[in-house]
Amino acid sequence: MLPAAEAFLAAAEAAAEAAGAAIRPYFRAPIAVEEKADQSPVTLADHTAERAMREVFARCFPEHGLAGEEFGHERPDARFCWVLDPIDGTRAFITGRPLFGTLIALLDAGRPVLGLIDQPITGERWIGLSGSPTRFTGPFGGRAGCRPCPVLASAEISATNPEMFTGSESARIRRLQSACRRVTWGGDCYGYGLLALGLIDMIAESSLKPWDWAALVPIVEGAGGRITDWEGHALAPGSAGQVLAVGDPVLQGPALALLAD
Amino acid sequence: MLPAAEAFLAAAEAAAEAAGAAIRPYFRAPIAVEEKADQSPVTLADHTAERAMREVFARCFPEHGLAGEEFGHERPDARFCWVLDPIDGTRAFITGRPLFGTLIALLDAGRPVLGLIDQPITGERWIGLSGSPTRFTGPFGGRAGCRPCPVLASAEISATNPEMFTGSESARIRRLQSACRRVTWGGDCYGYGLLALGLIDMIAESSLKPWDWAALVPIVEGAGGRITDWEGHALAPGSAGQVLAVGDPVLQGPALALLAD
Repeated sequence: MLPAAEAFLAAAEAAAEAAGAAIRPYFRAPIAVEEKADQSPVTLADHTAERAMREVFARCFPEHGLAGEEFGHERPDARFCWVLDPIDGTRAFITGRPLFGTLIALLDAGRPVLGLIDQPITGERWIGLSGSPTRFTGPFGGRAGCRPCPVLASAEISATNPEMFTGSESARIRRLQSACRRVTWGGDCYGYGLLALGLIDMIAESSLKPWDWAALVPIVEGAGGRITDWEGHALAPGSAGQVLAVGDPVLQGPALALLAD
Repeated sequence: MLPAAEAFLAAAEAAAEAAGAAIRPYFRAPIAVEEKADQSPVTLADHTAERAMREVFARCFPEHGLAGEEFGHERPDARFCWVLDPIDGTRAFITGRPLFGTLIALLDAGRPVLGLIDQPITGERWIGLSGSPTRFTGPFGGRAGCRPCPVLASAEISATNPEMFTGSESARIRRLQSACRRVTWGGDCYGYGLLALGLIDMIAESSLKPWDWAALVPIVEGAGGRITDWEGHALAPGSAGQVLAVGDPVLQGPALALLAD
């Protein structure tokens, strides 16, 4: 069990509340959309929500590191570091789909030990804490826990969009998706939440940044699933952004074999 | 104005309530998924919801025709015909995404004059009535009305999935999507609802059946948009299932030019 886990969790929930309060007024409202250097969209809602979360953590844990998608890295040498993505799924956000999420992760010496996905419009929240079962609350039903899926041919597989795959990845992902039962598109972090509810069996994506995947690790693992890169290694800040999450651990080997370059 | 419009609308809303009551218990619950002849998934929720809607219309308007995705066509020669899709977006439904919809359309001599999209999990509902402004209600905000978008290069474009395009359609859709500002995937009928709220500028899709598009016509048109096939003709039961919806009518010409074979 993580030392001070309950204090860390309380701060993470307070930060999620602050981010949600910052985001909700902008949802489905006219809002300027800018494009970042990597062409990904960003809005005032992203900036306002990340600032609100940083204030919470700076007040609760001034000695901790802070890294966010929008405002860089503070105290990178601290043992504990909060990794923030105010709006994961900005495309979903700006098109009015309530399937984006606020992501909060706590790294302990680089390893994700706490993860939170908050959907501030639907009121759904997933919490993963290293060594504990994943918790889920929300008004639409669903229970935390991955489902069994013994073979690829029975698997529901998902990914946010086909454009995230580049070079040889496109052929590799098609090989994997073709071996599965059905493919669904769209979802960002919400898809991993659905995997942790036993509604999706596998997600294979690429081009993910540490703030995209750090919060997902304790949530997927605490629900009984596995999440690694496309070589089966633990996700790490220097990784290529290729992510494979499986609800049933037996799917991992066959999926990695089809994703091999 | 449609004769008896208010009575038609009251029956459509009663049918949507009946379908929602039938669907909600199955959402995010373990449910058997079968595959139809066209490989599309179907569940007991689809069947139960369509039967519930058919009962409402048979009671209110026993002389009207009834056509649904799951149970065929009754009284096909009637002037008025209700066209039903209990769960448009069965893939979204079975993976726990609250972005599927129940679709109800009324055809007057083959022309859609009333359309309703109901999302029974989020509680959102769009209503289009020939000659009236589209109405929208729901807990997440949003106002009915398409937004201006003078050029393709500013347009948010969407489609449910890349697999719906076959043959030359794949190249044609890529040509159109490449000319737009951004592409989002996923959504089924919910995407057209977002277009009618001014949050998406264009949707180009294929392989749609009459029960997929009939309800969308009065909703998109009543919000100020246009919806046709890929040649600019009104959608008709015999059409190839290619649909182009634009929020700002000025986008229609340039989009049709890029979709031309």
